[in-house]
Amino acid sequence: MVPHLTTALTGPLLELERSFLDHSTAIERWFRSQWQDYTPPFYGSVDLRNSGYKLAPVDTNLFPGGFNNLNPEFMPLCVQAAQVAIERICPDARSILLIPENHTRNLFYLQNVARLVTILGHTGLRVRVGSLLPDITAPTTIDLPDGSHLTLEPLIRRGTRLGVEGADPCAILLNNDLSAGVPEILQGLEGQWLIPPLHAGWATRRKSKHFAAYDQIAADFSKMLGIDPWLLNPYFGVCGEINFHERTGEDCLASQVDFLLTRIREKYREYGVTEKPFVIVKADAGTYGMGVMTVHDASDVRDLNRKQRNKMSVVKEGLQVSEVIIQEGVSTLETVNGGVAEPVVYMMDHYVVGGFYRVNTARGRDENLNAPGMSFEPLGFATGCNLPDCRQAPDAPPNRFYAYGVVGRLALLAAALEIEQTAPAEATA
Amino acid sequence: MVPHLTTALTGPLLELERSFLDHSTAIERWFRSQWQDYTPPFYGSVDLRNSGYKLAPVDTNLFPGGFNNLNPEFMPLCVQAAQVAIERICPDARSILLIPENHTRNLFYLQNVARLVTILGHTGLRVRVGSLLPDITAPTTIDLPDGSHLTLEPLIRRGTRLGVEGADPCAILLNNDLSAGVPEILQGLEGQWLIPPLHAGWATRRKSKHFAAYDQIAADFSKMLGIDPWLLNPYFGVCGEINFHERTGEDCLASQVDFLLTRIREKYREYGVTEKPFVIVKADAGTYGMGVMTVHDASDVRDLNRKQRNKMSVVKEGLQVSEVIIQEGVSTLETVNGGVAEPVVYMMDHYVVGGFYRVNTARGRDENLNAPGMSFEPLGFATGCNLPDCRQAPDAPPNRFYAYGVVGRLALLAAALEIEQTAPAEATA
Repeated sequence: MVPHLTTALTGPLLELERSFLDHSTAIERWFRSQWQDYTPPFYGSVDLRNSGYKLAPVDTNLFPGGFNNLNPEFMPLCVQAAQVAIERICPDARSILLIPENHTRNLFYLQNVARLVTILGHTGLRVRVGSLLPDITAPTTIDLPDGSHLTLEPLIRRGTRLGVEGADPCAILLNNDLSAGVPEILQGLEGQWLIPPLHAGWATRRKSKHFAAYDQIAADFSKMLGIDPWLLNPYFGVCGEINFHERTGEDCLASQVDFLLTRIREKYREYGVTEKPFVIVKADAGTYGMGVMTVHDASDVRDLNRKQRNKMSVVKEGLQVSEVIIQEGVSTLETVNGGVAEPVVYMMDHYVVGGFYRVNTARGRDENLNAPGMSFEPLGFATGCNLPDCRQAPDAPPNRFYAYGVVGRLALLAAALEIEQTAPAEATA
Repeated sequence: MVPHLTTALTGPLLELERSFLDHSTAIERWFRSQWQDYTPPFYGSVDLRNSGYKLAPVDTNLFPGGFNNLNPEFMPLCVQAAQVAIERICPDARSILLIPENHTRNLFYLQNVARLVTILGHTGLRVRVGSLLPDITAPTTIDLPDGSHLTLEPLIRRGTRLGVEGADPCAILLNNDLSAGVPEILQGLEGQWLIPPLHAGWATRRKSKHFAAYDQIAADFSKMLGIDPWLLNPYFGVCGEINFHERTGEDCLASQVDFLLTRIREKYREYGVTEKPFVIVKADAGTYGMGVMTVHDASDVRDLNRKQRNKMSVVKEGLQVSEVIIQEGVSTLETVNGGVAEPVVYMMDHYVVGGFYRVNTARGRDENLNAPGMSFEPLGFATGCNLPDCRQAPDAPPNRFYAYGVVGRLALLAAALEIEQTAPAEATA
C-alpha cells in the first residue's frame, strides 16, 4: 500500500523528522493551542517538497481539487473532519450549494466534485451543485469514469441569496478559486454562509501574503522546537510591477533572484548542501502550475525568449501576470515508479485527511511537477498522517507521513492567519 | 475483511435499515442538532442486538475496554475523534492521568489501556497511567502479548489534586467503572478535569436511568423518522428491593416479567414475529456480564435454585445486587464463524470510531454473550460506520454498519442526557 520511496536520506531531514517524532506530543499540543486562536479554513491542500535537507510547503490551495485521488479507506476520516468543520462554521445548516470550477470536460476534476458531494452528504447536508457556466441552463447529469454521476444545475440569484431551482441553501461552498475574478452573482450575498470567504480566491489572494504569514508561523513553530526555521521555510521575494511582454520590471526580478540565490548559497554552505541553488519564479496570484519558471541565475530572467515570455505572462482564465513571487527552489528527492514525486497533503478543518504523490516522469527534481505528464499515486499515505511511531526509523512511512502532516498543517495555519490578515474591512456575507 | 453474515433478513429490520438509508441526510442533521444541546461523553461503547425484526442497544458502557479489539486501520479515526473530545473538554490540557481497572493480570484489558495511552499521546497529551491497586507501590512495567508495554504507577494525592511521581496532570480519564464505589483518593478533587464525571460510575449509575433517557431519545428520533420506536427500543422495568438470598422482592420481579412479556407478545403479534418472547433480568448497577439471567416466564424467577440465586446476587467487585432491571430480550440473528454474535460499537466524542463482533460459540441467540467462551472479531467494521451507500442493498455491510452506528449514537445521546439528569446538585471536580 505504501509506495516505494527510493530515497535513503541520512542528512538533516532525518534530523528534522527525528525532531518531529521526539516532540510529537509537544507539537500536537502546540497545534491545539494555535487552533484556539485561529479559525481553520474549511479545507485545503498543500504541495510539499522534500529535498533531503529541508521539507517545505511550496503551494497552499484553499479550493482543493483531487479529493478523488485520496485513498478511499480515508473516507471515514474525511467525513468525520467535514462534520467538525460544519459544526464549527454552520452547525444549523441543512443544505449546501457547491460551486465547482468551470471545466466541465475534465472528468477527473468532476470526480473530485462528486467525491465532495458524497462527503458533504454524509455529514447530513442536502447538497446541490450550482455551475457558474452560462451554458448550463438546465440540470445536466454527467456520467463519470468511476461509475458515479454528477448533476450540475444553473445558479439562481434571488435578491441577496443564491440557490438553484427549488433550493435556497444555508451555506455555499466554493470549489472554484475565482481566478477569473468574483462573478457578479457571488457579490453582495447576505444571510448565507460563504465558504471560504471571497477574499481567499485568486481574484484577491497573493501567494506572497500566504508565505509572509507562513514566515510567522514557521518562526513560532521553530522556536518552540528549537530548530532553524529555514529547514521548513523557503525564502521568497516579490516583484509587483512586471510586464513580461513589454520587458518592464526585469531589474527588480533579476535583483531579487540574485539576492535570494546569495542567501540560499549561504544556507547551503552552512548545511553542506552541494547542489546548485535555484529559485522558482511564478505568478503571485493564480494556480494550476501555469506561469512557473525555474531560474538558476539572475541572467536567466534577462534573456527570456518570446516563448518564455508568453508562457509567463498569462495564467489560468487568461489572467495577466503583473506580480510575481520569487521562491527558493526546493528540489524533490522523492521518486515513485521512476517519476519525480512531491507529496500533497489534504486537510479538512484542522485535520489531515489524506494525501497522495504528484508524480511527473517528464520533469526534473528542480522543476514544477504540476505540468503535462503528471499523474497521481493515490495510495501514498496508506498509513495515515497522525500516527507517528517512535519505535520505527524516522524515515519509516508512518513517520515520514507524520512529518508531511505537520508541515501541511503549518501551511494551513498560515492560510488561517493570511485569511484573517487579508479580510476586507467591511466583510460581506 | 468483512465477516460473513449468515443472516439473510427480509423482515422489518430491512425496512428499518432502508429507512435509515433513505433518511441518512436527515438523520445526520438531527444528530448534529442534538449534539448542540447535549455534551457527548468522552468515550463509550454500546452492545447492540439485531434480531431481524428490531435493532436495539442492550448495554452502554461509559468506561469502554476493548479498544485493542478495534480494526487498527481505524486508529486515525480514533485519534481525530479524541482530538475533538480533548478540544471540547479540556483544550488547555498538557497532560492526562489515565486510571484503569484493577485487573493487572488481564493482559487483554491492559492492551486496551496501552491502546488508549497511544491514542491520547497522539492528541498531544503527556499520558501517565496511575493505578488504584495498593500493591503498585513503584512504577511497574508490564510486557503485553502484542509487543507493547504499559507502565503502571502508584497514584499520589496532593491536597485536592491527584497525580503520579513527578506529574501533576491537568486531566484525569477514568477507564475504571467504579463498581467498587468511589475510592477516597478520587473524592473532593479540585482544579483537575475528571472524565467522565464520578456519577457516571457504577457506584451511582443505574441502567434503568440510562434506558429511561433512551426512551426519550428513541421517541424523538422515531418521531422525526416516522417509525415505531419499539423497532429500536427494548421495553424495560425495574425492581428496587430484591434480595436473591433471602428471596424477597420475588413478587415484584415476577409481575414485572409478566407485564413485559405481555407487552412484547402484543408487539410480536403486530409484527408477525413467531419466536418465543423472553426478558433479561440483570443488576441495575454493574457490568461485565455478571448477574444476568434469561427468563421466558414469570414462574422462572420464582423457582430459582441456590446456584442461580448465588449467581444473580453478586456482580463485579463483590457488589451485592438489590436493584434489577428487567429488559425485553432481543435475540441476535447474527452469527460469525459459527458462533452467535452481537455488534459492539465504539465512539469517542460523538463519532463512531470502530466496532467489533462479540462472538460466543457456547451460547444461544437469546442469551448474554458476555460470558465464558466469548471472543472478538476485530475486523467486523472494516468498512466504517459513517459511509452508507444508497446504491447497495440495505443489508450490504456498509449499510448494516451505518445502521449500527446510528443506534450506537442514539444510545450515546441517551448517555449524555442520563449524565446530565443524574448530575449531583453540587457537582464536584
